[in-house]
Amino acid sequence: MVKSFEDLEKMAKSKPSRKVALAMAQEADALKAAVNAALSGIVEPVLVGAEKEIKEIAEQESLDISRFAIIETEGETECAERAVELVKKGEADLIMKGRVPTAVIMRAILDKQSGLRGRGILSHVTILDLPKYHKFLIMSDPGLNIAPDLEDKIAIIDNAVEVARKLGIDKPKVAIIAAIEKVNPDMPSTMDAAVLSKMAERGQIQDCIIDGPLALDNAVSVKSCKTKGIDSKVGGDADVLIMPNIEAANVFYKAFAYLTDFNMCGTIVGAVIPIILTSRADSDKIKYYSILAGVSLV
Amino acid sequence: MVKSFEDLEKMAKSKPSRKVALAMAQEADALKAAVNAALSGIVEPVLVGAEKEIKEIAEQESLDISRFAIIETEGETECAERAVELVKKGEADLIMKGRVPTAVIMRAILDKQSGLRGRGILSHVTILDLPKYHKFLIMSDPGLNIAPDLEDKIAIIDNAVEVARKLGIDKPKVAIIAAIEKVNPDMPSTMDAAVLSKMAERGQIQDCIIDGPLALDNAVSVKSCKTKGIDSKVGGDADVLIMPNIEAANVFYKAFAYLTDFNMCGTIVGAVIPIILTSRADSDKIKYYSILAGVSLV
Repeated sequence: MVKSFEDLEKMAKSKPSRKVALAMAQEADALKAAVNAALSGIVEPVLVGAEKEIKEIAEQESLDISRFAIIETEGETECAERAVELVKKGEADLIMKGRVPTAVIMRAILDKQSGLRGRGILSHVTILDLPKYHKFLIMSDPGLNIAPDLEDKIAIIDNAVEVARKLGIDKPKVAIIAAIEKVNPDMPSTMDAAVLSKMAERGQIQDCIIDGPLALDNAVSVKSCKTKGIDSKVGGDADVLIMPNIEAANVFYKAFAYLTDFNMCGTIVGAVIPIILTSRADSDKIKYYSILAGVSLV
Repeated sequence: MVKSFEDLEKMAKSKPSRKVALAMAQEADALKAAVNAALSGIVEPVLVGAEKEIKEIAEQESLDISRFAIIETEGETECAERAVELVKKGEADLIMKGRVPTAVIMRAILDKQSGLRGRGILSHVTILDLPKYHKFLIMSDPGLNIAPDLEDKIAIIDNAVEVARKLGIDKPKVAIIAAIEKVNPDMPSTMDAAVLSKMAERGQIQDCIIDGPLALDNAVSVKSCKTKGIDSKVGGDADVLIMPNIEAANVFYKAFAYLTDFNMCGTIVGAVIPIILTSRADSDKIKYYSILAGVSLV
């Protein structure tokens, strides 16, 4: 089972090198992360974007990109479409977002004719290695689905569970997070959580154990469950946290990304390939780990 | 200006000792925190609850409570009402929640006849000292207001700003948090944020500088603002974070309280006195710091 980013790096290194189309490669942190992953033999970057700017940034950052293909494109949309096309043609295994805006790359990926849609919706899956927690924490969805309804939440759970299983957790424990652990009709997220738990019990959501509503402390702390008298198969030992809304998920992601130095990463799941998509402001470390995750999920 | 919990401790120690009614004192972490604060001369606990249990816990935890008044009460409601009554009579300056459930103590405080209501609504204010941030971060509201509307958010801002000013920040910078920094009609929290910013500009919300919507990274990272081209008087230097909903605030609070060892505390503001109210599962350190905050706000 993958329990740390060292494990994840080993897993990524044990796989064949993957071709990653870096969309608008003229972005220092993303380029640095891609070059680092290439040096470890994990990926072979295909740099899509403005060649001149890419080379300038490489020089500024002292990155040797002479071995990598550069595909000259003009503007955001052309670049995004070209990255998707490379995957369609089998010339890239993965897409990574560089300077291209999320909305633009997602539009190209979600295009019904030329895109890369999978069975369900796409969602963002964050993986965190927190010193105070005894294993990886997987969290969704901080960046894609604005107001997920019950059906969307099921798809978000499916995507996160798929990631957990690829990391070696056979039957992941999924906590549906709310602000409290009691069902409260004034808090719709607690009602959704109760429904999702029962659906898993009835076999309507598979390959995982679900419990909710749980407040975050109940999900990650056995002591907290005891203090509050909560008897839960998930409480204190969650593998996956499903957040009640995009705001809570985004705040959780960014609290760790910007206010701690803990290791974490993020990937978009649910398309025919994983998409390595981090916030432009994220560090090159987060971007490097996100490449490891993306490669491990192929 | 108070920039750390050491500063806050100094500030609390410089004030006259305050009488704190500990509601249902038969709770180990709360009792420990109150006794510690008493040893530093910061408070004089008045232990309200079941005397026998209180003494048992004190013995188990090796706490000397022989100097403190114990007021025997039976059950949760009687205890909560008695704690409120002590404040009304001038026999206590503050209330601290022990084992009594939040709902019960809040009912007694909010009672229109016998309670301790102030001008506006009550809200929970969290104070965090994060190693990666250059000053205190103040955050609301993780625990009280389930679905705050615009009026409620103004009161929540007022309460948080009052705390910031008592900590020595003359004109606090307030970030109204959303999942993104752009106004998006599909995300009501971004609309509220825009409105609140303009209201502050027009002098309808005073004593602070407000900007929003900001994603959390924009609020706390100058680099993130630069990367995303955000020109903001608050961005990267926020004193106060107003969260878009109780779920996001609760997740933010608990992420730090349960998944890091950073120093933090919480207090309820907006009643005629501060109320020291932490989650039952919070550590005695959080409870001790919360007493410091409560005393400093009187």
